[in-house]
Parts: sequence; C-alpha cells; structure tokens
Amino acid sequence: MKNVLIIGCGLLGSSLVRRISKKKLAKKIFIYEKSKSNISKIKKFKLPGTIVKSLKECTGDLDLIIFCTPMSEYKSLILKINNFVTYKTLITDIGSSKIESSKIIKKFLKKGIHWIRSHPIAGSEVSGPEHGKDNLFEDKWCVLIKEKKTNLKHLKFLNTFWRKVGSKIVIMNSEKHDKIFSITSHLPHLIAYNLVKSAQDFEKILKFNLIKYSAGGLRDFSRIAASNEIMWRDIFFDNKINITKAIDLFIKNLKSFKKDINKKNNDSIIKKLIQTKKVRTKIIKLKQDIDKPDFGRN
Amino acid sequence: MKNVLIIGCGLLGSSLVRRISKKKLAKKIFIYEKSKSNISKIKKFKLPGTIVKSLKECTGDLDLIIFCTPMSEYKSLILKINNFVTYKTLITDIGSSKIESSKIIKKFLKKGIHWIRSHPIAGSEVSGPEHGKDNLFEDKWCVLIKEKKTNLKHLKFLNTFWRKVGSKIVIMNSEKHDKIFSITSHLPHLIAYNLVKSAQDFEKILKFNLIKYSAGGLRDFSRIAASNEIMWRDIFFDNKINITKAIDLFIKNLKSFKKDINKKNNDSIIKKLIQTKKVRTKIIKLKQDIDKPDFGRN
Repeated sequence: MKNVLIIGCGLLGSSLVRRISKKKLAKKIFIYEKSKSNISKIKKFKLPGTIVKSLKECTGDLDLIIFCTPMSEYKSLILKINNFVTYKTLITDIGSSKIESSKIIKKFLKKGIHWIRSHPIAGSEVSGPEHGKDNLFEDKWCVLIKEKKTNLKHLKFLNTFWRKVGSKIVIMNSEKHDKIFSITSHLPHLIAYNLVKSAQDFEKILKFNLIKYSAGGLRDFSRIAASNEIMWRDIFFDNKINITKAIDLFIKNLKSFKKDINKKNNDSIIKKLIQTKKVRTKIIKLKQDIDKPDFGRN
Repeated sequence: MKNVLIIGCGLLGSSLVRRISKKKLAKKIFIYEKSKSNISKIKKFKLPGTIVKSLKECTGDLDLIIFCTPMSEYKSLILKINNFVTYKTLITDIGSSKIESSKIIKKFLKKGIHWIRSHPIAGSEVSGPEHGKDNLFEDKWCVLIKEKKTNLKHLKFLNTFWRKVGSKIVIMNSEKHDKIFSITSHLPHLIAYNLVKSAQDFEKILKFNLIKYSAGGLRDFSRIAASNEIMWRDIFFDNKINITKAIDLFIKNLKSFKKDINKKNNDSIIKKLIQTKKVRTKIIKLKQDIDKPDFGRN
C-alpha cells in the first residue's frame, strides 16, 4: 500500500510503525499523536514515520488508518477524520473490546466509510513508544471482526496486512469476541487490580509492611495491575455486561472455595485444585506462554 | 554441624540438599523420602545425600532435622521421630503457614525437643527433586518464628544456617506471619485457582475454546494455579481464619469495582487503577520481582 496513518503512537502504535517500516508494508507512514511527551520520544528514538500536527495533513490519500488510542478517544477523532476521509480508505483499530465501541463508530463515522475492527493479542504492562518493538505481534493471535455487512475485499486486505505484521489470524463476530476476552483478559486484569487493592487495604489495617514479602504470589498480580489505567477503564466500561457476568461467576466460585476451606472439605477442594492444574499444560502446548518454571524469571 | 536430616526431598528439600552439600554445611546429609518416584529421581540426579529407608537409621546423632513435606504429613512423622530424637537435635520446617500446624507440633512432639519454625519465601509451580537448585534461596526472605518460649541459642543457630543457605532473615511470631502471608501469598494462590476454575466453567457454558486466547492475562494466573495441590490444600486449611478474612475483603472490593463499572463511575475507578499501579514500582524497588516488562518473557 501507499500510505498508512497510525493514530496514537504508544506501545502498540509504535510497534506497528517499526514493523511496517521494517517490512516495507507502506510507502509512507503518518503518525498522529497528541501527547507531547510521546512526540519527543518518537523523535528521540527516530521512529520511521512522519509526525503530523493535524489530521488534515494526510487524510486525502490513505489506504489504511489504524486507531491505536484508548477507545474513549474514538468519538472525537472520528468527528475530525469525517471531514477528510474518503471511501478509498479502510479504517481499523486495536481495541480490546468491541460491542460498545462499535456503536460509537456506527453512530459517528461518516456513512460509506469502511471500518473493520482488529484486536491483536499483544501488549504489556508498560506504555509508550519507547517500549514498542517490531516483533511485538510475531506469532500472536489477531482477531478480525466480521459482521453480516463486513466487506470481504477489505477483510482480505486487512487479513493480509496483519499476517505481514506477523500475527496469526482468527475471525469472529463482536459478540463472541467480547465474551471470550471478558474471561481470558478483562476479568484477569480486574482481578489483579482488585487483589493489589485488597493488599493495600490490608496493609493499612494491619500496619505491617506486606509488599516486602510479595515474592510468594502477589508480585505476579502486581505486574498486570500496573497496566495503563485509561485503556483498562475504557475496556471495563465497554464490555461491562460480559464482565459483570464474569464477576458474578467468579464470586460464586470463590464462595464455594471459602466453604471448602472452612469445612475442611478435602475431596471437593482437591478435585478443584487438580482440575485447574491441567490448564497450564494446555496453555503451554498451545504456545500461549513460556515453557519454563516461574516464567524463566530466576 | 555434623549431621542433617531432610524429610521430604521435593523442590525445596532437594534444593537444601544441593546447597548444604555445595557449601559444606554438614558432614553428612540424610534424606528420608517416601515417594518411590522421587527416590529414583534422587538417584538419577545423584543428589549428594544418603537415602534412609527408615527414620531409625539416622535419628540418633542429628544436629538438625528439616521437615520439607506438606504439613498434613507432620503428625505421622512426629510420632515416628519421637522414638529416636534427643534433646540435642533441633527441628525446623519450611511450611508456609504456622498457627494450626504449630498446634499439631505442640500436641504430638515429645516434650523437651526444640522445633523452631522457618518459612523460606522460595518456590515455584513445579514440584519434585529434578527441579531443585542450590541457589533457590539466594537473596530470598526466610521468616523465622520466635514465640515467647523460643530458645535463643537454637534461634541463633538456625539464623546462621539459613544465612549460609543464602537467605535474608526476618523474625516474627506465628500470628503476624500468618496474617502477612494470607495476603501476599495464600490469597493470590486461591484467587489464581479460582480464576482458572471460572474460565473452565465459562468454557463449558459458552462452548468456545477460550484457553487458546489466554495470552491476554489468564496465562499468568495459570502458572500459579498449577502449584502442588496437597501443599496448597494444607496451607488453605491451616490458615483458614486469616484466609477467610482476606476472601471477604477481596469480595467486598470486587463488588465495589463492579458497581464502578456498571455505573461508569469514572473518578472512582481511575483512582483505584492509579493507586494499584504504585505497588509494582515498590515491588521492583524492593527487588521482589524482575525489572523487565512482561517478566522478560518475550
């Protein structure tokens, strides 16, 4: 393709810039970034793209626009690009939940413009263009959202694009996507935040320095609970119906564990602990995690 | 010291054997292990200790006995060693919780024998002597339990021993210990088990393959949820009062998050998400985790 525009150049946006440039996937890469701190980092690290101060500077002749901002910024950005974008341009994004934000897109995007949603399962607890890398998407899943009205030609184009970025593609609709990721990603993040919050509360109640002894388990959760707060607020709000269901089942199961513990119900608890163990083996077989004890940390 | 007896030669026991031998901390290391599979691994890896088939073979002249078995095995082992152990021998253990198991020790151990409890904060999701390593305890905390009646000479001996093993020592009573670790270790493990259990339940309800997409968060929890089920059942039962309090606060906080999400209460959720983030920085400063994004996995 000729021109691509990356809107939002943080961890994921900057990784796309690096990859697109390295693999020569576009003749020109435009970057739109509103954070002054990110702009100076982009310059410092000499990212291979042209920074535009206004979206007007590039939207005339674009093949692809990729939204890499938190989802709460979509609306105001859509209102800006509506003035310039033409039907020749395909739009996509990297948002981690789809149902609510799709309603925003449908409501505000100029009619006739195609936006097919993407979700690359890649990221980290750190943010900002200094942490991006060209192989961030390598061998990672990228979900493409196909609804009844999705244009198949555009979907094929996007499929090819993400494959060149290094991803493995899976296609599903928004509803299925949001259900799956409410369990495998959104609930785990919420639980990690909640566990760290609870530890902080206990530290105040007990007046002990707890964090000092976090190597026994808490430290793992603290990594996830260090993730970007704006991005995660947007995901929690966007996928609230599925996340609420997930919270309810989680609390129901936790109460069952509590009962087992209080009644010292050996058979019931052992059955649960043995069953959960199997998932780790499955995850490693599916190459979704590193095959080393303790993530190979020590 | 002259002789040491390691009872239970899994991950921690075998790491102690390796370290004691490497640093020449004892003239002779006896190993008592009831699992045939572990015994053949000990032979295969040529661990530097003498395997005894019966505790009678070595208990006469021991300086130190270290219990490295799950806590549910203490009672039957105590009844065996009572026949041979003398007041010259100090006993310790590596159990992760202390209050309930201390009652067992007090009730069944022959009067006049000293047992000072230890808890090295080291371990992994894998079990067995094949995973042990001589530096497992290096720069890790080891909690020593000091109660009113603790013999200070023995405590000093144990302190020196664990320092030679590589640990940093902290001394506290059982009550404080069990409160701290109910938050930093026991609750995180229970939550990880519960999250994986909930994901498995959802997989059945939705009839989707969820685990395939676990790289977005779930995989981290699956590591902890792969920990040894006997060891963790024992800890949950042993420290049930503190763990129950921890579960209750956790559920209260989770319901508050749920309310924020459902009401889209921006200020409240952002405040929580920013606050929890600080713990990660603290943990890394305290050298309780690796200072690399994503545990340096990719």
